Amino acid sequence: MPARIVDLETIDVRFPTSRDLDGSDAMNEAPDYSAAYVVLHVDGTDDHAVHPATEGHGFTFTIGRGNELAVAAAEAIGKRAIGLSVDEVVNDLGGFARHLESDSQLRWLGPAKGTIHLGTAAVLNAAWDLAAKRADKPLWKLLADMSPRQIVDLVDWRYLTDVLSPDAALELLERQEPTRAERTALLQRDGYPAYTTSAGWLGYDDAKLARLCQEAVDAGWSSVKLKVGANLEDDVRRCGIARRILGPDARLMIDANQNLSVPDAIRWAEALAPFDIWWFEEPTSPDDILGHAAIAKRIAPINVATGEHAHNAVMFKQFLAADAIGICQIDACRLGGVNEAVATLLLAAAHEVPVCPHAGGVGLCELVQHLSIFDYIAVSGSLENRVIEYVDHLHEHFIDPVRMSGGRYLVPEAPGYSAEIKRDTLTHFRFPDGGAWK
Amino acid sequence: MPARIVDLETIDVRFPTSRDLDGSDAMNEAPDYSAAYVVLHVDGTDDHAVHPATEGHGFTFTIGRGNELAVAAAEAIGKRAIGLSVDEVVNDLGGFARHLESDSQLRWLGPAKGTIHLGTAAVLNAAWDLAAKRADKPLWKLLADMSPRQIVDLVDWRYLTDVLSPDAALELLERQEPTRAERTALLQRDGYPAYTTSAGWLGYDDAKLARLCQEAVDAGWSSVKLKVGANLEDDVRRCGIARRILGPDARLMIDANQNLSVPDAIRWAEALAPFDIWWFEEPTSPDDILGHAAIAKRIAPINVATGEHAHNAVMFKQFLAADAIGICQIDACRLGGVNEAVATLLLAAAHEVPVCPHAGGVGLCELVQHLSIFDYIAVSGSLENRVIEYVDHLHEHFIDPVRMSGGRYLVPEAPGYSAEIKRDTLTHFRFPDGGAWK
Repeated sequence: MPARIVDLETIDVRFPTSRDLDGSDAMNEAPDYSAAYVVLHVDGTDDHAVHPATEGHGFTFTIGRGNELAVAAAEAIGKRAIGLSVDEVVNDLGGFARHLESDSQLRWLGPAKGTIHLGTAAVLNAAWDLAAKRADKPLWKLLADMSPRQIVDLVDWRYLTDVLSPDAALELLERQEPTRAERTALLQRDGYPAYTTSAGWLGYDDAKLARLCQEAVDAGWSSVKLKVGANLEDDVRRCGIARRILGPDARLMIDANQNLSVPDAIRWAEALAPFDIWWFEEPTSPDDILGHAAIAKRIAPINVATGEHAHNAVMFKQFLAADAIGICQIDACRLGGVNEAVATLLLAAAHEVPVCPHAGGVGLCELVQHLSIFDYIAVSGSLENRVIEYVDHLHEHFIDPVRMSGGRYLVPEAPGYSAEIKRDTLTHFRFPDGGAWK
Repeated sequence: MPARIVDLETIDVRFPTSRDLDGSDAMNEAPDYSAAYVVLHVDGTDDHAVHPATEGHGFTFTIGRGNELAVAAAEAIGKRAIGLSVDEVVNDLGGFARHLESDSQLRWLGPAKGTIHLGTAAVLNAAWDLAAKRADKPLWKLLADMSPRQIVDLVDWRYLTDVLSPDAALELLERQEPTRAERTALLQRDGYPAYTTSAGWLGYDDAKLARLCQEAVDAGWSSVKLKVGANLEDDVRRCGIARRILGPDARLMIDANQNLSVPDAIRWAEALAPFDIWWFEEPTSPDDILGHAAIAKRIAPINVATGEHAHNAVMFKQFLAADAIGICQIDACRLGGVNEAVATLLLAAAHEVPVCPHAGGVGLCELVQHLSIFDYIAVSGSLENRVIEYVDHLHEHFIDPVRMSGGRYLVPEAPGYSAEIKRDTLTHFRFPDGGAWK
């Protein structure tokens, strides 16, 4: 019997992180980091897989209440995967992505945004995990071994061609193809550069901020991000503390988590500019392309960064075309899975804007490392001004957690998308009936 | 005991409209028009209400599968209303709207978009229905009796001030205030102009299209909209049939329901321009502000129209500021309820762009008539180039259905937001256990 996807298992996993104010910022005062978790189950055998993996794991990230909606969305979208031939899915992940999104009734709930798109990401990421495991490769390598044409075919081009044509994307990929092996070797030797957000959550007092900044310096971090945006006077003081401890050479970034209007964001950036800010992240509404463009124009050379709430490639197309961002922050779960992330990497490379993924949360570090590594090997070909966010939370729950060394991500080696959470964790943190919630 | 909101009742209502291809278009091939329906129940008494109404009815519209997600979203948001004082809610509906949207964990699912925003609309619309019923006024009159300052206070200005300040909005409202009574009287005499979409669904053959166009002319319609965007040759033929039957003076609009890329949309508009098109609706992705701006620039004097999938006021702010739309099509349920619709009316009036609401579906005609009537009386003060969409479907299920005469909406007189569906309908069409679905 040929292998088919026979079941979609979903689990509402929540970590009670709000108890310690980990992850607190100007907008998200007390998150409980959560995952709408999906396992695609395969039954049947065939001779095409390099490895006979029968499970694909994926998830989307939320911050607590409402995770049940993301789970329900994954179930609604996931029904479309049941019964499909695994061979057909893993050999045409572009077609599979379009299939998941082509239920015209479910489309109304987005389109391509909000809960239904989060659910799509969970299911599609699970299929990519399955594909990588059956190819016996880490996801970055599954992608990096594809031909330029295969990569172009992963993307839904319908709404993108006015800014980037498939042919132009192909040319861009072909330019990098001959030197992929060199860059792969370099990453395997040195790892991919990262920055840390662990020091600067808004809920921490000055003493804890100072201590964590010193620890970051001692641990070899050269880029550190602080949460700002609630009170300007506090932020001036906090940025002063951070810059004093980090010294003049480290990169300091700030993040307002959408808490400001366009005029206030400009005011904030002008007040904090003396502390030599590399980027200003999420200054205002994530939907406000023209607002970000106005801010970017006024606060240069500080870069505007956004993207963790940019819901699809059409939004990134515009942020890039409008010169609204100097740093492109894709999120592996906010975008509708690997395919839309690949589309955005291509758009960013075409505009020569560095991609510095959003991470942290539950397992976002585990996912985005694959995307950045693929970006360097096959798409942008550059590490200049590129860093992956790193937050030291919850990695212990993953089967194949990120490995860090000297402020860099080491290249993952295990097959799959590093998305798999330990069964004990899934049981203990299941909401609302797991031990952690009783 | 002072009156409080004590319960939120939700019902998944679906009409099997896909069986007749009513509502078919290039993107939505077979919708089952549905409502995620909400009743806010009040207990307790007080002396402040003009009328002791104890139920507020509201809903959001979807097209079938996934309606259960909108219901679940309404439940998650609606929890925030339980226990609140009814007096406090109805006297500060701006504060209530911000309260509904300020759960930082639920916000992550949007923000202000997708399923969670649809659920917010259902709950907030129910509170407005309750407020209007307790004031013993139709919703349009509750709004039109507010002072300019009270209207300004309905709006969440956080992300809007760079384009419209509260003071400028106040001035705009004060300009119209002295003449509100004249315009009210005029509407009560003549009704509000409408256009019909019933003739031009994509699933209808040429003979049915011709017959329905003739019926529209005979019934006094002077504006008719056709669905296009699947096949250009077919659309040229269909627009030809429509224009021939409608004659040279009627207004003909086309609607691609997002099915085209930016270059294809321009191609379509150029091919159909000979049929004297008034507006081209939803040519491409509803998120593509810059794409719509590019289309608008190329296809003038045909107006670009969009908005039924524009998820919040930040999107409309940009569509307007970028000259991307000549017609602003608010949706009463896609926006997060009455407050965000008011924000958008103010933004559109400031840009002198006519608002022609999206309607049809389930009960959208019933809702938007109130918004357009309020717009004319208190905000824009104009009927020029303004028409409300009308589709002759499903009105029989409403307690207070729209009343049409000679292609115009008659002003509703019953207290409330005209949102209430008959109990028999709620029972018969409840999904999946109502009689209609067995």
